[in-house]
Amino acid sequence: MTETAYDPQNIFGKILRGEVPCHKVYENEHVIAFMDVMPQADGHTLVVPKVPSRNLLDADPATLGHLYAAVQTVARAAKAAFAADGVAVYQYNEAAAGQTVFHLHVHVLPRHEGVAPRRHVDGMADPALLAQHAERIRAALAN
Amino acid sequence: MTETAYDPQNIFGKILRGEVPCHKVYENEHVIAFMDVMPQADGHTLVVPKVPSRNLLDADPATLGHLYAAVQTVARAAKAAFAADGVAVYQYNEAAAGQTVFHLHVHVLPRHEGVAPRRHVDGMADPALLAQHAERIRAALAN
Repeated sequence: MTETAYDPQNIFGKILRGEVPCHKVYENEHVIAFMDVMPQADGHTLVVPKVPSRNLLDADPATLGHLYAAVQTVARAAKAAFAADGVAVYQYNEAAAGQTVFHLHVHVLPRHEGVAPRRHVDGMADPALLAQHAERIRAALAN
Repeated sequence: MTETAYDPQNIFGKILRGEVPCHKVYENEHVIAFMDVMPQADGHTLVVPKVPSRNLLDADPATLGHLYAAVQTVARAAKAAFAADGVAVYQYNEAAAGQTVFHLHVHVLPRHEGVAPRRHVDGMADPALLAQHAERIRAALAN
């Protein structure tokens, strides 16, 4: 067991407090959504609740309701923005499951037939490209 | 785009109507949870809302709230039952994203450090083993 308490110095905590920038695509009372800087597919977006929890295991169930309602909103927009054939929604709890930032978050990946997701460790994306992708999703959300 | 309407003859629809058996681990007003018959890890459980939708993209947001509250319940129990180090929560929308049954469902996978998930296509698990695994999760839920 590797669980420890919530650490507010995690990178998503910093993004939520505006201490670190992000390519934001969506925000409401409960969540923000922004581009993953190490995208596994074009349009890979993270949806993050504002209320802190380490992951899904310790979250308030009401937070999960708000979170996944927003995941739906973002998933539909990302699918439209990238003319994707499908959308994969991943959520990892603890390092053994692939969690690397210990603030609850959901991965939204537009998927195309026959295109395998890239590995998360393949590196940082070009910020200009991420900005362009964020704009595509924001435009889809505005429709 | 490959989306079509909800087909009530999908296998999870049949399980929900009691026409096909399953290794059930949990049920409430809104969902049932049962063992995946092609598990990618020991304890691989599916959480399925009773209200029909094809996937997350066309679901009622209220359904998503009930669904993920139950996912949390099942994830905690599956983690405890298999003394797992983490839990991965996957949800696939459309074939291009890995969806094979077109009734909304969430995969809950107990994960252990250094153990990669098996491929979903590695085949059917021994029903006696699944029954045993279901019993372990039910016991954890009862605690």
